[in-house]
Amino acid sequence: MVVVMQEGANEEQIQNVIERLIQMGFDVHRSTGAAHTVLGAVGGAAVDHRDIELLEGVREVIKISASYKLASRAFKPDGTVVTVGPPGRQIKIGGRHVVMMAGPCTVESAEQVSTIAGIMSDCGIRVLRGGAFKPRTSPYSFQGMGEEGLKVLRDAADKHNLLVVSEIMNQTQIPMFLKYVDILQVGARNMQNFDLLKELAKVRRPVLLKRGPSATIEEWLLSAEYIMTGGNHDVILCERGIRTFENYTRNTLDISAIPVIKKLSHLPILVDPSHGTGRRDKVAPMARAAVAAGADGLLIEVHHAPETALCDGAQSLYPNQFRELMSQLNIIAPAVQRAMM
Amino acid sequence: MVVVMQEGANEEQIQNVIERLIQMGFDVHRSTGAAHTVLGAVGGAAVDHRDIELLEGVREVIKISASYKLASRAFKPDGTVVTVGPPGRQIKIGGRHVVMMAGPCTVESAEQVSTIAGIMSDCGIRVLRGGAFKPRTSPYSFQGMGEEGLKVLRDAADKHNLLVVSEIMNQTQIPMFLKYVDILQVGARNMQNFDLLKELAKVRRPVLLKRGPSATIEEWLLSAEYIMTGGNHDVILCERGIRTFENYTRNTLDISAIPVIKKLSHLPILVDPSHGTGRRDKVAPMARAAVAAGADGLLIEVHHAPETALCDGAQSLYPNQFRELMSQLNIIAPAVQRAMM
Amino acid sequence: MVVVMQEGANEEQIQNVIERLIQMGFDVHRSTGAAHTVLGAVGGAAVDHRDIELLEGVREVIKISASYKLASRAFKPDGTVVTVGPPGRQIKIGGRHVVMMAGPCTVESAEQVSTIAGIMSDCGIRVLRGGAFKPRTSPYSFQGMGEEGLKVLRDAADKHNLLVVSEIMNQTQIPMFLKYVDILQVGARNMQNFDLLKELAKVRRPVLLKRGPSATIEEWLLSAEYIMTGGNHDVILCERGIRTFENYTRNTLDISAIPVIKKLSHLPILVDPSHGTGRRDKVAPMARAAVAAGADGLLIEVHHAPETALCDGAQSLYPNQFRELMSQLNIIAPAVQRAMM
Amino acid sequence: MVVVMQEGANEEQIQNVIERLIQMGFDVHRSTGAAHTVLGAVGGAAVDHRDIELLEGVREVIKISASYKLASRAFKPDGTVVTVGPPGRQIKIGGRHVVMMAGPCTVESAEQVSTIAGIMSDCGIRVLRGGAFKPRTSPYSFQGMGEEGLKVLRDAADKHNLLVVSEIMNQTQIPMFLKYVDILQVGARNMQNFDLLKELAKVRRPVLLKRGPSATIEEWLLSAEYIMTGGNHDVILCERGIRTFENYTRNTLDISAIPVIKKLSHLPILVDPSHGTGRRDKVAPMARAAVAAGADGLLIEVHHAPETALCDGAQSLYPNQFRELMSQLNIIAPAVQRAMM
Repeated sequence: MVVVMQEGANEEQIQNVIERLIQMGFDVHRSTGAAHTVLGAVGGAAVDHRDIELLEGVREVIKISASYKLASRAFKPDGTVVTVGPPGRQIKIGGRHVVMMAGPCTVESAEQVSTIAGIMSDCGIRVLRGGAFKPRTSPYSFQGMGEEGLKVLRDAADKHNLLVVSEIMNQTQIPMFLKYVDILQVGARNMQNFDLLKELAKVRRPVLLKRGPSATIEEWLLSAEYIMTGGNHDVILCERGIRTFENYTRNTLDISAIPVIKKLSHLPILVDPSHGTGRRDKVAPMARAAVAAGADGLLIEVHHAPETALCDGAQSLYPNQFRELMSQLNIIAPAVQRAMM
Repeated sequence: MVVVMQEGANEEQIQNVIERLIQMGFDVHRSTGAAHTVLGAVGGAAVDHRDIELLEGVREVIKISASYKLASRAFKPDGTVVTVGPPGRQIKIGGRHVVMMAGPCTVESAEQVSTIAGIMSDCGIRVLRGGAFKPRTSPYSFQGMGEEGLKVLRDAADKHNLLVVSEIMNQTQIPMFLKYVDILQVGARNMQNFDLLKELAKVRRPVLLKRGPSATIEEWLLSAEYIMTGGNHDVILCERGIRTFENYTRNTLDISAIPVIKKLSHLPILVDPSHGTGRRDKVAPMARAAVAAGADGLLIEVHHAPETALCDGAQSLYPNQFRELMSQLNIIAPAVQRAMM
Repeated sequence: MVVVMQEGANEEQIQNVIERLIQMGFDVHRSTGAAHTVLGAVGGAAVDHRDIELLEGVREVIKISASYKLASRAFKPDGTVVTVGPPGRQIKIGGRHVVMMAGPCTVESAEQVSTIAGIMSDCGIRVLRGGAFKPRTSPYSFQGMGEEGLKVLRDAADKHNLLVVSEIMNQTQIPMFLKYVDILQVGARNMQNFDLLKELAKVRRPVLLKRGPSATIEEWLLSAEYIMTGGNHDVILCERGIRTFENYTRNTLDISAIPVIKKLSHLPILVDPSHGTGRRDKVAPMARAAVAAGADGLLIEVHHAPETALCDGAQSLYPNQFRELMSQLNIIAPAVQRAMM
Repeated sequence: MVVVMQEGANEEQIQNVIERLIQMGFDVHRSTGAAHTVLGAVGGAAVDHRDIELLEGVREVIKISASYKLASRAFKPDGTVVTVGPPGRQIKIGGRHVVMMAGPCTVESAEQVSTIAGIMSDCGIRVLRGGAFKPRTSPYSFQGMGEEGLKVLRDAADKHNLLVVSEIMNQTQIPMFLKYVDILQVGARNMQNFDLLKELAKVRRPVLLKRGPSATIEEWLLSAEYIMTGGNHDVILCERGIRTFENYTRNTLDISAIPVIKKLSHLPILVDPSHGTGRRDKVAPMARAAVAAGADGLLIEVHHAPETALCDGAQSLYPNQFRELMSQLNIIAPAVQRAMM
């Protein structure tokens, strides 16, 4: 912690701050400049820096220790590669391949999922996405098929040798999800559902953690830290748009979060351009941008008949649009020393 | 729904949109202007307006029906007054009195809560606040005393004839909370924890619903709607700051949400200037502003020794600051035909 | 400047940073903690802290010196009181009185301004506002009456013994404005029009500086600093809403900026609830909130017939609404040891 | 304009709104639904929709006409290609080639610019950027070399057969700039300096219009409209980051603005990843993302010795980083049917 005293702070005020810091267990180094006195406080326990900030004569207190440890790049400088799936069907996220996860927004029926899974499989996709429990802003919207939807996903995936990612809503659902899915997805609205995160920490299955629409990158990494402190280190981050004043797009997809996360953390980062833009015609440009910026993978909604989709059809790609996107990504990936999978 | 066609959209495109709307069960009224054709679609089921927006020749689709019904002012033009507490200790929120809820951020011990409850009671406060389960951004922060904390709150409140409000973290805690608290608080991070909201809808006890830091007012009212559709109409809203680019304050307290809610909804609205600013020296000005703008109450953190508080001491008022604030609010309330309680 | 080294930074990297800082003219104090080495750099010239931030082994660089000096509270701890107007008609801004500036958004005709000025004068208002040059987002909107509008304002003001505030658009207009107005208003869009600010610095007449819709408080004070460094210390700040994701209101009026400015700066601060909300029915609540939070004055749009106004009629109060607001403010002001003027 | 009446609005209120609309010159079409009455208003002059919104019984008023005309895609469906430079040195922006504009943030000396121009020329770059007048947030920062800087740019450009783009600060500088530059750059802070825009409308030289950090896309296009209504149709848009709550990056580069602009407007769009991120190590990823998303060009800061730069060295690429970026972009551009220039 660094404490910056106000210009003109008197000696009594400075001594008062120093004493307080020492009480808190810090070693204090004092620097006296022309305008300001600066106190460096090293060691000491975790304290609320605002407690010092409100002392007389203090202008500003600056935290130094990164609040996350296990999620920081320093903890694992070479980067994490998360292995997903049972032996024989495993894929790696965070390695040389850019991983595509695709499928419908919502599971509607066995036929629907089977059709889309077949198309995905033909495209070389290895991970099937689909929602069985839907967090809907309005209580009047379709809330998902529930456990039956998870079964449908698992069956379709097994038929086509795919892995499954699906969103979990609360900690009581964990045992159910472990029966059906290979990756447990935490939605943006649940990024700070700490009770859910603490229980996911006890599981030994990869977690895909979406960024909250108003979460800073630091808060996002702290949520990852919740999962990691409990022993589950297989966390995959996923950027899906932040809320800004610009309303033409549903959210503003923060592409710069990709290089920032690559510097701050060792965890892999995916991007969801479907939720990040909310409109089919913006999905492909943003998917290309994400890969060009260094994303480790994409989460994309595809539907064989989006106009009949029960949910978010407007942001789902048609299969032929998806194939065209794949061919563009195959061109782009080598520019960042990657290949598509 | 109103569909605005692009300038220059041709007749085939227009007919295509009309047919699609009729299929969806809408009655369609067509207006042809110099530049644009506009289609008014009335009736019909709830549909995703983006499905129409992506049709050829469509420039824009505008939703008309308010997505919330029970929470809207039209549903109850005279405004809701929520009665809290058991007979003999009841208070009313949303009526002539501006209701203060005050107490420590976090329950630390029976002594601490008892001391503060005594001070609050002497100030004429009727509702004691305090956190027993704490949603902390970092896994390394103090996570609360748990059920023991709820007991401590209840005991202190009973001794001083106070009511209790405390934050619930997930739906499995509902039976436990019903034993101890008079108002169930849903924190900002849980505003869209729909599984929690659905279970609170089945309870017959008032819910205090905080606004999420990046939630629009419409989304906030839709979360209230989740609770009301299940039959629990005793919802109290609470503004606690939104996230903006300005970082001097922890959040930007959106005071204008008060008159906006008063127009859109019949539900009472409180303001939490402690979390909304994060700094003790900003709490009183914002509390005064909230009452002057028409808030139905305040949620304020007070601590007899903030410098020793385990959590958020920096935003807790000293008892004498709280008393001074009360005397200022007593001057202001009559300007809006209210009185403090 | 404080330089925080990465966890695990080696001695060579640390020495390299120290040498670079010394080259830049800093005295360097080193603190070695368990996890981090921290370097305090005192003295030295103004440098771009990012130059250090990009050196090997550096985690973060923290600026210490406030970038503004003349505008900071430390420069004038007692607060500035700006005197406006010629002898005999002077008023003071920043003193005990909360100053109202009111009038039409736009000057439309001599009759219109004269009517409104008469009403304002009857209400005890001392400063007449009105726009003669209008910065309009669209080139197709009414752009104002120009110099003729300024004359009309001056004449009406003189007839009723009022002072005039009006918005200036660029530095070539300064001589013209000096003939007619008592306060030169810099609009939100011009807050960082540095060429205009530099010329206003040479003038000896008060400047009312509105906050840009996406300006941080620090940037706002730096714009004030531009005016003050040239010798014009009569700067009055005016908060008028910042841009956020919430779109029900045109902008989000940042009421918390009032106590923040009071702490950081000695300059007086006004609030404009008319532009800050964009809707007549929100003006009075926000005006009350501003005074309750400690604002030194208000800038409010009033029109005798808003439904015929050429510009922003929707945010103009009717005279009777204005009178009712004044009576409410008269109740509120004493709560903060102020009186209305 | 579409007027949505409140649920329960009575016939008198509806008739009142209809009469008012007819007075304003609109043809009105009425649709009566189960819950709402909707009035479509066609024709009529430009009016402030809030005037209707505040009438009794009105819930909401929705604007229909796009406020910009000349800048809209409908005005020129095939897209604009702007030709820059004198015969013999011309380039085209908005065509098949992705155009790079590169150079130092600030002109420091003839030697500096000449060195960088030589490197740029060797890389195949055709447009040299550099600031001679600098809009600096702080009055204590270096404000640029002025006209001498423009001369230096022109000389270096001529020696290497390059074109020049440089930022203009106000309308009085136009004649001076016309002597030296091929593209007049309007900085983000001047995007709504309407007096400047009106004068640039009279010029026959391309204008590069940066997006303001809090400007919506609609406001940006309206600023372009200011230039185009005066007869100057050679407007090039440039995205450079918007202000959001995320502060790790200086701004959040809004990559999704690229496909949005491509749909709404016919004007070419560039991206400035140097100002958009503020950090050298984020420039290349965001430059790649921009090209992958369909940008027509890039504006990038390059310096042969960034550590000695007078301004923004931290966001300037080293020449070898620039060359590596170019080779990556050469791989990416074909994915969107483009080539680099």
